[in-house]
Amino acid sequence: MAKENESYKELESRRSPESLKRLYLENLKLTKKAIKESTGKDNLIIQTIKSIEDLKVGANKLAKRLREWYELYNPEFSRSISDHRKFSQLIISKSRSELLKEIGLKEAESMGADIDKKDIDAILLLAVQIITFYDTKEKLEEYLDNAMEQFCPNTNALAGSLIAAKLLEQAGSFEKLMGMPSSTIQLLGAEKALFRHLKTGARCPKYGIILQHPVVAKSKDKAKAARMLADKISIAVKVDYFKGEFIGDKLRKGIEDKLK
Amino acid sequence: MAKENESYKELESRRSPESLKRLYLENLKLTKKAIKESTGKDNLIIQTIKSIEDLKVGANKLAKRLREWYELYNPEFSRSISDHRKFSQLIISKSRSELLKEIGLKEAESMGADIDKKDIDAILLLAVQIITFYDTKEKLEEYLDNAMEQFCPNTNALAGSLIAAKLLEQAGSFEKLMGMPSSTIQLLGAEKALFRHLKTGARCPKYGIILQHPVVAKSKDKAKAARMLADKISIAVKVDYFKGEFIGDKLRKGIEDKLK
Repeated sequence: MAKENESYKELESRRSPESLKRLYLENLKLTKKAIKESTGKDNLIIQTIKSIEDLKVGANKLAKRLREWYELYNPEFSRSISDHRKFSQLIISKSRSELLKEIGLKEAESMGADIDKKDIDAILLLAVQIITFYDTKEKLEEYLDNAMEQFCPNTNALAGSLIAAKLLEQAGSFEKLMGMPSSTIQLLGAEKALFRHLKTGARCPKYGIILQHPVVAKSKDKAKAARMLADKISIAVKVDYFKGEFIGDKLRKGIEDKLK
Repeated sequence: MAKENESYKELESRRSPESLKRLYLENLKLTKKAIKESTGKDNLIIQTIKSIEDLKVGANKLAKRLREWYELYNPEFSRSISDHRKFSQLIISKSRSELLKEIGLKEAESMGADIDKKDIDAILLLAVQIITFYDTKEKLEEYLDNAMEQFCPNTNALAGSLIAAKLLEQAGSFEKLMGMPSSTIQLLGAEKALFRHLKTGARCPKYGIILQHPVVAKSKDKAKAARMLADKISIAVKVDYFKGEFIGDKLRKGIEDKLK
């Protein structure tokens, strides 16, 4: 180590300060360029799916808060409708008596307290916020759909944009996803259960994210369906990575026929 | 027990089905009325402060996501500004070259990738969402301010609307807050530390939510300031509960003078 340091010092002493500075700047430029070029479409897709998930969690949380608040005023109506978005829209556009009429109740029968208009306006502020939340989420999903169709048409056609993007998110990059065997793809998103299996000998998980795919979710033998789907996805990803022909539809039809 | 049941059955057999039904309906009506009347202004205030807190957490989470995403495109600018709201507004209103110019950089020197316009539009969707988030939070804070001023003017003047509302939230209702000794008010929001103290003999907490009050936060002896402030708050709450005269300003001035 001491010797290495010495030889480094020797080398340094032979260099003029200017040439060192030039070297540093040149190096910095190259590194910056490398960073700039390392951002691919897959990074953008990963950020998009993460944002969509954050928006989903946030919207649900706020909607629950809204209901708790609004139920002081009109509990019966809130209990009659489970869709958060529709609920928010309705309480903005209609009055309490109209809403109660829809579910066949009179205002006098309600357990809700009589609240001043300006207090209700505050509640509705939150409802408006929740609607813009769902709108943004929808727009981002549309964008994701388009981006996935261009970036990996086969994987997208086979798995659907949300599942494909989630797989990509778990893998970290498209290149990494491409290098994964189908058994790994099958378990992406079930890491916790997998490591519990390896550590404690608990049962091995049979599917991760791809359980959300209709082919797997509807199947009776989910483990088998998950294995087959992961198999095809792993093919589709490789075709996409090497810009092969479009076979996504064929792959999807094949698996749907087999699992009928 | 068996005897009680028997006598209940006897009682029931003496009643006609109609009279029983009438009794049931009458009871239901009274219960509904009691529920309706149990909602006070303090319930609304508690919901408001909970919503404000949810909005705050949500906005911060989304803003971090936005930055991670936007930094693929323009990392230097994101690092130069820490205010999330301002950051979101600026990236919507100005182009990358303008933003980089503001921090004295040229576009060619940036490490950010060149991203298509429609990909950037997706990022900006999230930025717009974050701005509406902060706007809603601000409007609710305004509403809370007004509501607190009307509902408990003394506590509000002494503690400020956010802290007073948080104390109310922790206590559960204004009546409960009114019944609390000042030592309990002092520790509201530090329950975890308090129970750790009781259970394991760790150090006793000296302040909870009221640490956020400028009088306590700026003080050198925070424990003493917290004790004094909790003392005055407990007086203010009782005055508000029994609709006494306005002495909030005097209380606040007294404590500020003492701690100078």
